[in-house]
Amino acid sequence: MQPRHVDVAILGSGSAGLYALSKVRPSGKSWVLINGGHTGTTCARVGCMPSKVLIQIGEDLQRRGVFERYGFDSGDVVIDSAEALDHVRDLRDTFVERVESNSTNNMDAEHFIPQYARFLEPTLLELEDGSQIRADRVIIATGSTPVVPKAWQAFADRLLTTDDLFEQEELPRSIAVIGLGAIGLEIGQALCHLGVEVTGIDQLKSIGGARDPEISKAAVEIIGKEFPLWLGHAAEVVEEANGKLRVNAGERSVVVDKIFASLGRRPNLDRLNLQALGVELGSNGVPAFNPTSMQIGDLPVFIAGAANGVRNLLHEAGDEGRIAGHNASAEKIIGFRRKTPLHITFCNPNICQVGANWAELNQANTAVGEVKFGPVGRAMIMGKNKGLLRVYGDKHSGRLLGAEMACVKGENLAHLLAWCIQQELSVGDLLRMPFYHPVIEEALQAALYDLYAKVETKNPGPITELIPLG
Amino acid sequence: MQPRHVDVAILGSGSAGLYALSKVRPSGKSWVLINGGHTGTTCARVGCMPSKVLIQIGEDLQRRGVFERYGFDSGDVVIDSAEALDHVRDLRDTFVERVESNSTNNMDAEHFIPQYARFLEPTLLELEDGSQIRADRVIIATGSTPVVPKAWQAFADRLLTTDDLFEQEELPRSIAVIGLGAIGLEIGQALCHLGVEVTGIDQLKSIGGARDPEISKAAVEIIGKEFPLWLGHAAEVVEEANGKLRVNAGERSVVVDKIFASLGRRPNLDRLNLQALGVELGSNGVPAFNPTSMQIGDLPVFIAGAANGVRNLLHEAGDEGRIAGHNASAEKIIGFRRKTPLHITFCNPNICQVGANWAELNQANTAVGEVKFGPVGRAMIMGKNKGLLRVYGDKHSGRLLGAEMACVKGENLAHLLAWCIQQELSVGDLLRMPFYHPVIEEALQAALYDLYAKVETKNPGPITELIPLG
Repeated sequence: MQPRHVDVAILGSGSAGLYALSKVRPSGKSWVLINGGHTGTTCARVGCMPSKVLIQIGEDLQRRGVFERYGFDSGDVVIDSAEALDHVRDLRDTFVERVESNSTNNMDAEHFIPQYARFLEPTLLELEDGSQIRADRVIIATGSTPVVPKAWQAFADRLLTTDDLFEQEELPRSIAVIGLGAIGLEIGQALCHLGVEVTGIDQLKSIGGARDPEISKAAVEIIGKEFPLWLGHAAEVVEEANGKLRVNAGERSVVVDKIFASLGRRPNLDRLNLQALGVELGSNGVPAFNPTSMQIGDLPVFIAGAANGVRNLLHEAGDEGRIAGHNASAEKIIGFRRKTPLHITFCNPNICQVGANWAELNQANTAVGEVKFGPVGRAMIMGKNKGLLRVYGDKHSGRLLGAEMACVKGENLAHLLAWCIQQELSVGDLLRMPFYHPVIEEALQAALYDLYAKVETKNPGPITELIPLG
Repeated sequence: MQPRHVDVAILGSGSAGLYALSKVRPSGKSWVLINGGHTGTTCARVGCMPSKVLIQIGEDLQRRGVFERYGFDSGDVVIDSAEALDHVRDLRDTFVERVESNSTNNMDAEHFIPQYARFLEPTLLELEDGSQIRADRVIIATGSTPVVPKAWQAFADRLLTTDDLFEQEELPRSIAVIGLGAIGLEIGQALCHLGVEVTGIDQLKSIGGARDPEISKAAVEIIGKEFPLWLGHAAEVVEEANGKLRVNAGERSVVVDKIFASLGRRPNLDRLNLQALGVELGSNGVPAFNPTSMQIGDLPVFIAGAANGVRNLLHEAGDEGRIAGHNASAEKIIGFRRKTPLHITFCNPNICQVGANWAELNQANTAVGEVKFGPVGRAMIMGKNKGLLRVYGDKHSGRLLGAEMACVKGENLAHLLAWCIQQELSVGDLLRMPFYHPVIEEALQAALYDLYAKVETKNPGPITELIPLG
């Protein structure tokens, strides 16, 4: 049988694949969307969305503590973890349904193929049913899967990842969260707020992706008051006689009902037979690709989203999908400038990273401004004045390079900063913007003043905050 | 006795006066700060700060309702209004003390004169003790006072304004809030959350300073579910036989324990004898002044902050103080470009106005993009998905002109927008910025896409969200 021919084949109907399709479809090219396994995006099914619901419940529970500060007697809230998980699933189902009903649910069998595919050649795909598709261009957007060490798989239902946490009927009494990047830290803190006895473990000394040692220290100090953080040692897990799990890390040890593995995510490439592309594969199985065009080598093959293992973030998957989709359906393959890096860990306080991170900075040319949240008026009023924000600027030009923070409303401040960095503004430019009162943005303003004092280039005119006329 | 001579006299040690001093002091000019009545700024004493504390308590109380959504039994919180007011005063005192200890507390008698002053000539001032000061330049920064109709003063302690609300020992059982601008709406809603029976009344049909009829409608609909809003009729207040107050507005009538007058603020100019300046005074008693230099006519006299009645906002008072301070101590009087207008009413949802307001727009050249918050993912998760945001752009160029909103995290979105408008960015420019997921900024993104579709100028290149390379 002759392979069926299409102009563009997209492997994966997650976020990156659907964004790719949004550029392929209007081009008039013929296309097929091939997706083995679940439909619905990682984000909506097991990622951003259900985790934020759990975090929100946790935060609301945590916030009750404020009534004591006001001098009010506050009654007990009876936490019902089964109800909480039902609520998480209700909202998650709404989000998944919304994605599906806008995409795969409305596609005919000619366009949507619910099967896994593998490469036979760079432009020849074989489906599970043995049929073949010849595509002039192929987009790999197969997403990613939580990393789980092989040895842990024996723990069966005592091992949780984001794939199954939200499917639980009840929460465990105790859990060790192993891996305290964004996902582990968010989930660990939320479970702690929901009354689970949480032990957080990471072999790194930082949490939530923090790179700046001062931010990392501040975050560990604040969150470490809520649940124990064991940092700097890898976790070892062994089964106890009673079926519980003993987790050892360095000299510490705890027995828990379950473990939550948040060791990162690995691109879903195993089934694809990427050897057939005839290019070298990296240690994580990802072939070299151009991050501005998403093209693999000079093949008519593109790789976008979590499948390439670089930027596991929805908005980046969106951009990569659009780029891959455009290039897979255009005459000429072109590159695009990528957006200013932005990372948010939605723990409390938010841990955020914007622009160049600490490790990327040329320290000799960088000035750092900072603000501690202790005396920040609005933060005091909110009772959330534990935190630190640091902004990095070029010592000479005053151009803003990056920022990192562990603070209340970090997610919002990070957007402000990312937008300014993308525009290549200087710290002096930012000080001319309006800062209302009393708002958390005033904390950023304080950090900017601190930075401004340390850079060489000052605003022209007699008033830093205002542009002279005429 | 000869008048004492100084280079610069500042009347008023509130925010505008202190910011003015921050520019006068380093100039090396001789100066005196003259302040009758309270020290401590309006903001810290009776304005932004204590009101935000009350709002925060109210919001925390209100938020308990979310536990029902999660399926949790939530115990009752016993609201103790005496404790709440104590907490407000505790924090307020901290803020006032901070202002005073950084300013007037450390000044000697030569520099700080705790008396009222009046003009004899534009550069000659008379103090309460009869002594005179000849100042080469004078800055009027005497602040403002709540407007109270004369007839209402007879209600004595049944009449509250921001001047006395925070001094109460307990909150009343019922109150009519008369005037639903920023202050009235914030206080009214906070009192409602604290269990006070609130009736809100305004002769306008909008609340919280909303100018856009759609935003106004949305705000009234959302907040009107919490307490009755009687709009479009002036309030009449009469004393009942039992000492309570009857408030009539249009055909409606309510009997309350107290009224809260939030009818606006009036510049504190009565004691100044501004007639001695020899310039015409406006109907509110304010002489004509240049808003870029703060100069009154061509006199060596400047007027800054709430005393000039234009921008009753701390950050604007800061700018006006700095401008007046600079011009009062510099050789040459110069103008400065004022910042992009930004107004936030800290009610829930926040009502915010940025840039050009609805009434100022040239409707024929304006396109409007909007987003309803109902389906916004993060807002759904927060349980705060009632709201509306509208962005205004130039129909041809796509340049962002302004925005208005009644929505969760409006205060943060308003900063993002104000900073972009001040940089004269277009809607297309904004769509190229990173929007994380899931964040409230994505609601703004949706409104921007809506606007983008309606403007003529599109981003170059095949992908709206990205800049092509090379």
